[in-house]
Amino acid sequence: MAGELFLSEIREQPQALARLLEHEDDFAAIARALVERRPAVIRLVGHGSSDNAASYGVYAFGLLPGLTALRDSISLTVYYDAQLDLSGSVVLALSQSGRTPDVVEYVERTRARGALTVALTNDPGSELGRAADAVLPLSAGPERAVAATKTYLNQLAAIALLAGGAAGRGREVADGLRRVGELLAGALEPLEKAVPAVATSYAFVGRMFVVGRGLEYATAREVALKLTETCRVAAEPLTATDLSHGPVAALDALFPVWTIASPDQALPAVVEAAARAREAGATIVASGSAAAAIEGAAHVLPVPEAPSPYLSPLLSVLPGQLFAAALSLAKGLDPDSPVGLTKVTLAP
Amino acid sequence: MAGELFLSEIREQPQALARLLEHEDDFAAIARALVERRPAVIRLVGHGSSDNAASYGVYAFGLLPGLTALRDSISLTVYYDAQLDLSGSVVLALSQSGRTPDVVEYVERTRARGALTVALTNDPGSELGRAADAVLPLSAGPERAVAATKTYLNQLAAIALLAGGAAGRGREVADGLRRVGELLAGALEPLEKAVPAVATSYAFVGRMFVVGRGLEYATAREVALKLTETCRVAAEPLTATDLSHGPVAALDALFPVWTIASPDQALPAVVEAAARAREAGATIVASGSAAAAIEGAAHVLPVPEAPSPYLSPLLSVLPGQLFAAALSLAKGLDPDSPVGLTKVTLAP
Repeated sequence: MAGELFLSEIREQPQALARLLEHEDDFAAIARALVERRPAVIRLVGHGSSDNAASYGVYAFGLLPGLTALRDSISLTVYYDAQLDLSGSVVLALSQSGRTPDVVEYVERTRARGALTVALTNDPGSELGRAADAVLPLSAGPERAVAATKTYLNQLAAIALLAGGAAGRGREVADGLRRVGELLAGALEPLEKAVPAVATSYAFVGRMFVVGRGLEYATAREVALKLTETCRVAAEPLTATDLSHGPVAALDALFPVWTIASPDQALPAVVEAAARAREAGATIVASGSAAAAIEGAAHVLPVPEAPSPYLSPLLSVLPGQLFAAALSLAKGLDPDSPVGLTKVTLAP
Repeated sequence: MAGELFLSEIREQPQALARLLEHEDDFAAIARALVERRPAVIRLVGHGSSDNAASYGVYAFGLLPGLTALRDSISLTVYYDAQLDLSGSVVLALSQSGRTPDVVEYVERTRARGALTVALTNDPGSELGRAADAVLPLSAGPERAVAATKTYLNQLAAIALLAGGAAGRGREVADGLRRVGELLAGALEPLEKAVPAVATSYAFVGRMFVVGRGLEYATAREVALKLTETCRVAAEPLTATDLSHGPVAALDALFPVWTIASPDQALPAVVEAAARAREAGATIVASGSAAAAIEGAAHVLPVPEAPSPYLSPLLSVLPGQLFAAALSLAKGLDPDSPVGLTKVTLAP
């Protein structure tokens, strides 16, 4: 049946997370090695969903151990061969398959230039796993739908474990993640029931904005990518502030804006952005555990509140994943096999 | 006349650039101060066009002095109050008006935490100018159209001067920028003649992708923003690799893809992305000085080759600016005053 793989992998996420947590000690050991390096910067790299998870890393490392993490430019190192000093760098390379060619090459080059390189992949025996100083298993299990879901979730969890470990709070994060798994399991059924009616309203939509800020910018990017991949919607992720600096001009009544609202310091900016979008005539979908804070939303898809704000993104991505599955079917598409995509992207 | 301000500011860019270059010595002095700090990272911040210019800074600082530059998260410092060690950081804060509230607050906080902070603004006497350790004039002159053009150009030039100065190549960069000014002046008239016919073909377009990579990713972001602001097109900027990792699935014959092709190491990735987009049925616009390398483009809008690859983005943005002006008029809009936007964005 169309969409069966995609949906089954969304549903499997609590189990995938539990599998990752079996490796809690391995993550703690790498977190210790990371701290010993006293890094000036953590460089996160990956493409697609992996790059979205890297966005989360910027906040997780900034908030938990107070380290500067950045989504590094792969092209600067791989294509331009820039002569950067990497002796104070730790690299976290994200790839579902471990076979993304320019991520492998990035790791080879940065390792040769003195960075401590760590691969995070579902296949520790892959080329990427062999290229890095250390490899950590994402343990999401075989992912057969082209659009990643459980791997993305486990990438967030892996980053949270490393950032928590680097802050001496690895156990707290692991316990929080176990609770997230329970909350995800409980949220699946009510959300699965709620999304088809919402999706039907958007069957003819060709473009959307997806708005988050801070920790939830990663979620905005990931939800937009799922919609683009599986629904052929031109869905652009924006920070709440980006929206005000230009894109608000493009809005009208046929332009839905998906908002991600979590109870943290970035929430007022998201509430304000939603208000501006609504004034411009856009239709608002509110998701996240603070979805009720978004006024005048046409549709509300809440999730349970995470045990800590820095874990919110693991829950708030779920409505977007399920909505993408439902909208793809409402549009007569097959979310398991998006047009023109393959599971491992080997193109430059 | 509708669009007269926007167009006159696009045409004024060679003069604006010349005004900036009168301050060459001021930029050289700040570049020396930057190098003396031996920074672990350069943190670039700004919103909208200023953030797009920051994308250029990642490459300019990486390629010229071999320094790690990043588009920093404003929310991490301003909203979340993350406890980052900033003693090894230089901050470059970009704001046309110098009045963007969270950029001012970012500078105040990072300065208090030990960073060397430099403001780049058209108004050195602004709040931002007063908040920073040092201020450099962008010298673009009064910008009256809401969508920035000459300020963006001068931001790129300012960043190039600082990166070049930090590499001990400030004079080379300044000379290159003078040549860019001449090339821009010469390119204006032929491009102004060419764009209306192209724009007419796209009068009913509601969404586009804009593809660049490496140095030209900044251009892709800036062209997409101009189209979104002035033409109400949902134009999303993508790296050549992003396109293959998902968005290619959304393409069809009604989905134009604007490509930016410059003669550097990232060109093969852009050529490949254009080929994939064409296979998916999309209509291709090729711009940049290597536009001829893009096969099967429906429209070609070339620019002269820059004196050095790292200066290409100052020329390759011009076709996109002029196209946005023409498309806005073709759609019956006024590019001078986009709906819902104001010149200084005070919202969070």
